Amino acid sequence: MKSSRRGDVDPFIVMDVMEEARSLEAAGRSVIHMEVGQPGTPAPAAARAALSRAMAAGPLGYTVALGLPELRAGIAQLYRRWYGVDLDPARVVVTSGSSAAFLLAFTALFDAGDRVALGEPGYPSYRQILRALSLQPVGIATRLENRLQPVPADLEGVDMDGLIVASPGNPTGTMLDHAALAALIAHCAARGISFVSDEIYHGLHYGARAVSALEITDEAYVINSFSKYFSMTGWRVGWMVVPPDHVRKVERLAQNMFICPPHASQIVALAALDCIDELEANRAIYAQNRQLMLEGLPQAGFAKIAPPDGAFYVYADVSELTGDSLAFAREILHGAGVAVTPGVDFDPVRGRQSLRFSYARGTADIVEGLARLRGYMAARGVAGGNARG
Amino acid sequence: MKSSRRGDVDPFIVMDVMEEARSLEAAGRSVIHMEVGQPGTPAPAAARAALSRAMAAGPLGYTVALGLPELRAGIAQLYRRWYGVDLDPARVVVTSGSSAAFLLAFTALFDAGDRVALGEPGYPSYRQILRALSLQPVGIATRLENRLQPVPADLEGVDMDGLIVASPGNPTGTMLDHAALAALIAHCAARGISFVSDEIYHGLHYGARAVSALEITDEAYVINSFSKYFSMTGWRVGWMVVPPDHVRKVERLAQNMFICPPHASQIVALAALDCIDELEANRAIYAQNRQLMLEGLPQAGFAKIAPPDGAFYVYADVSELTGDSLAFAREILHGAGVAVTPGVDFDPVRGRQSLRFSYARGTADIVEGLARLRGYMAARGVAGGNARG
Repeated sequence: MKSSRRGDVDPFIVMDVMEEARSLEAAGRSVIHMEVGQPGTPAPAAARAALSRAMAAGPLGYTVALGLPELRAGIAQLYRRWYGVDLDPARVVVTSGSSAAFLLAFTALFDAGDRVALGEPGYPSYRQILRALSLQPVGIATRLENRLQPVPADLEGVDMDGLIVASPGNPTGTMLDHAALAALIAHCAARGISFVSDEIYHGLHYGARAVSALEITDEAYVINSFSKYFSMTGWRVGWMVVPPDHVRKVERLAQNMFICPPHASQIVALAALDCIDELEANRAIYAQNRQLMLEGLPQAGFAKIAPPDGAFYVYADVSELTGDSLAFAREILHGAGVAVTPGVDFDPVRGRQSLRFSYARGTADIVEGLARLRGYMAARGVAGGNARG
Repeated sequence: MKSSRRGDVDPFIVMDVMEEARSLEAAGRSVIHMEVGQPGTPAPAAARAALSRAMAAGPLGYTVALGLPELRAGIAQLYRRWYGVDLDPARVVVTSGSSAAFLLAFTALFDAGDRVALGEPGYPSYRQILRALSLQPVGIATRLENRLQPVPADLEGVDMDGLIVASPGNPTGTMLDHAALAALIAHCAARGISFVSDEIYHGLHYGARAVSALEITDEAYVINSFSKYFSMTGWRVGWMVVPPDHVRKVERLAQNMFICPPHASQIVALAALDCIDELEANRAIYAQNRQLMLEGLPQAGFAKIAPPDGAFYVYADVSELTGDSLAFAREILHGAGVAVTPGVDFDPVRGRQSLRFSYARGTADIVEGLARLRGYMAARGVAGGNARG
């Protein structure tokens, strides 16, 4: 039986850490989870209630491929609420999470062999999905002085058919402001490079709000999800906004590749759009957690961090502590009882000297996790520094 | 902005018919839906209740990529119940519907440019998904004397890296028996051709049960779903069984391409496995509908039909009535108030002379639809024939 080359994607290193955490817990050990990339909160209560009503009312069969019309309209309305952008609902494609949006975007935009650039550090699955679709990922090393986001100078002379950016980014939480995002879009537009903007952490900001590519251009694929701000990871529902002349093509691909996004999840998502109070209360907790992290991590000796404008991560340069972030993450897990993510998933090279700390869980966990990190690192002989500045 | 060639997949012709049916209904006209490919029944009541309980109990976050362990175990158990096959749950991959299973299977098995054969008529998305993944679909014309299923003689000398078969098939409902399936598997095994068995209509049989490829070999990708027998189309949850040495590869692809199948849908699916009485009651209705179709369609002049062993379709050769099945379907829609599917989606060439009639809805609809077809065709001057034989 044949087996493909393109299916030989890299494993997630973090899975090893999660598995070790799981077996420690199974053995009775307490572990604080700073490795997770998802909220600890459920989908909003009113949204879950909407699904219970819908399940009682009738069958949840296939929806049309682009999603429930009222959900597409609601998402278009969100662009007015969040960014003051007028968006035609016809351009909104509801997807089975941002994962399906990437599969749709990449198949609609690129042919086998095409080269697609992405900033490093970045979401590891970009690279693996591209490979699985016979595309060539092109890693762009970003710099700390650019908040670990790509800038046009980094792209000069790079042979590429597409560029993916994420603001706020994962693992860094750093944002591209309007000028920085516009500069990247202009660079790509001038060269016929397709621009894909991953905006999955929009809504989760702690100073200025994130800027959408749609505030700057219609000639982009914008990908978002109900997973993070709307606290619906397991429901697998997201969306994509595409240029007007790409809608039919994406619709045909979606009909064939996915039939439709989960109907039940679309119902929950539609109701979640109106659950502003509950979602803003979640965000207030992240804001508090973030403040604790920005104070507590340097005290534990993790002082070299990119300023986390949004999302729920802090990415720390630990080059003074280790050259092997995986071994270091294991050491912290066993020594401190705190699970953290080694940077190698996000950046194959420099990630060996980085860790990602998530503050997506409850505040009590953050307080306890930071205390454990401080205690462990002090015992290890690492002096705490000051807050970032 | 770039746009891909591989994304230029064919539209579903049936969508035009469905849109016309919708606008007729919006204008107050009654339409009987014999074009739909999904049950009119909801997910089993006890399964929906299980989800309501789970939603109240805690957040439905990401599951592991291969699916909830208890669901994988339950699916493995189903192979014992249905086929008497002992299956290691570790080989079961829960997916976001059979759609995601195809995306996983094709990326795990084939590289860009590889040739994958499929019987015609067949499920139209096979061809389009293959194209979207830069693979080459190779249509195999099947023969009525083989019940419109491929046989090894059809494959002789065909250059191919993979073969997809479906039993019961869509649009025909015909099955491959043990010997016929084993012959195809042996043909592929001898030539290093990857074998993909689409078993999405298993459970919906009206004589002998369908045979699974797993009764014959472990060296196949077997794809199934909770959509049809379990009446859960819109929930988007299915599964795939892969050879033991392919599990890790498929797991890595699934982690990156999908993260996980919808958590809520997995909970419904797990409970649905035990809802045997409700699901068998659904099947009894299909059986009754099928009998009505086998009597009523020939009376309306549609006598040349492949024997529908399973699923909920009847595929009719209408070559004596038309050379343009799309125009004919439109005529029937407007003239009789019955929506049917033209064969062109399933077979680009011979489908011009075929129609697919679905009997997935309630029996009252089937009775009314058949009466309308009889009346319309009689007025059109077509003499009714006898039942098939």
